[in-house]
Amino acid sequence: MNASPIGIFDSGIGGLTVARALYDRLPHESTVYFGDTARVPYGPKSPETVRRYSIEILDWLVGQGVKAVVVACNTSTAHALEALQAHSSVPVIGVIEPGARAAAAASAGGAIGVIGTAGTIASNAYARAIQRARPGAQVEQWACPLFVPLVEEGWFEHAAAELIAREYLEPLRRARIDTLVLGCTHYPLLKPLLQRVLGTEVRLIDSGEETAGAVARALEADSLSASGGAAATHRFAVSDDEARFRQVGARFIGDRLGRAEVVSLG
Amino acid sequence: MNASPIGIFDSGIGGLTVARALYDRLPHESTVYFGDTARVPYGPKSPETVRRYSIEILDWLVGQGVKAVVVACNTSTAHALEALQAHSSVPVIGVIEPGARAAAAASAGGAIGVIGTAGTIASNAYARAIQRARPGAQVEQWACPLFVPLVEEGWFEHAAAELIAREYLEPLRRARIDTLVLGCTHYPLLKPLLQRVLGTEVRLIDSGEETAGAVARALEADSLSASGGAAATHRFAVSDDEARFRQVGARFIGDRLGRAEVVSLG
Repeated sequence: MNASPIGIFDSGIGGLTVARALYDRLPHESTVYFGDTARVPYGPKSPETVRRYSIEILDWLVGQGVKAVVVACNTSTAHALEALQAHSSVPVIGVIEPGARAAAAASAGGAIGVIGTAGTIASNAYARAIQRARPGAQVEQWACPLFVPLVEEGWFEHAAAELIAREYLEPLRRARIDTLVLGCTHYPLLKPLLQRVLGTEVRLIDSGEETAGAVARALEADSLSASGGAAATHRFAVSDDEARFRQVGARFIGDRLGRAEVVSLG
Repeated sequence: MNASPIGIFDSGIGGLTVARALYDRLPHESTVYFGDTARVPYGPKSPETVRRYSIEILDWLVGQGVKAVVVACNTSTAHALEALQAHSSVPVIGVIEPGARAAAAASAGGAIGVIGTAGTIASNAYARAIQRARPGAQVEQWACPLFVPLVEEGWFEHAAAELIAREYLEPLRRARIDTLVLGCTHYPLLKPLLQRVLGTEVRLIDSGEETAGAVARALEADSLSASGGAAATHRFAVSDDEARFRQVGARFIGDRLGRAEVVSLG
């Protein structure tokens, strides 16, 4: 039994969907969330820069006494996961591998779509992980840069969101995918829209939920779980603009989002 | 006569619309453009951080031998223009004052709209500048966070862009504005769409074009203009991700966009 919190970090706000999945899956675990709102987005930054920022955040989280770290950011997972694992004294879990494995297992025919930011798609990290889990899978990827700002505006069901989703998903629909990985932490908020556009026969894989499952298994394997009676607490920290984090973040996790402290890194 | 280039900077790509306006207005002037693509966007960053970044860029541009600097970024103009002017050995011109003055002069009835990023609108800088130029003006502001990613996708005439524009502009239409300031350097690419949504009776003010006029007057006043026979050259520098800068930047200024050098600041 270990009552220390789990660290979670993202380049900004999106990782809160992963936090939410963790709260649901592991209700007795406390967490510390760090959003690097001063340096968001990581997508356009070079892999070296993303690695440097990610290691700074890991060091800060470990300094807060976390027992494990969840990289709730696809870009950081793609570019920095190995470096973080090599550097870290606690287990580090990324969002890509759990989502890729779940998709590989869920797909009936092996035609799997992946959507994400331009940076995540360009990194090819999901395609590689899916091919490792299921050699021969046909992976169709598409970058959807307008989805993040749509989610941050709260336009989950706006007619414009539907037009945009239809355009982005058309190549995947034509490729007859049977499974779609939501390869960006903002996208779970668009799930009902995406399901409607693709039809109910396409299975949506939420990387955040799959990651929460992977964290649960890792804690158990290392005997790091909190006791069943523990009262979980959730801390939040950002590197800039706390007001916007709270305003937009409330769309992600509602009133579980408390005041965030502002921490300068780097 | 002074053949030195004019420095132009922005947090990223958008300032290229200001560069384009300068090329058109001052065809004999050479320029050096700096896009801070490693640290874009400036909107969510604190005013102190924006000032620090802006001064680093100014110092770099002055080190390249520029005779004047254009702050082709609304956020940087809002938070850093005074600090830059106090710090600089060459004239520094921002984008807000020229756009605000032009709107104050162009408006028949004094009902003036301003659209921009969330950061620019929250700074209130346009509203203050318009009120200074035309006391009693009624200023209606609206943040349009989806316009920048729409422009960067190149969806200037997409049906989704029209739906989004109708929603954002509705409060301004209801306020019966007769003049609209495009308070973000990306927005000139949406001009035909915005004009169609608002109707031809609303006058659109492009801050970039007005700024080019202000630069022409400043060079003349300080006897800094290049000679009429000069062959202009245009250099580009970015702090990260040169490939994306060229790809998206070509939508802004076409084949005038050459290869950009990558420069590390800070």
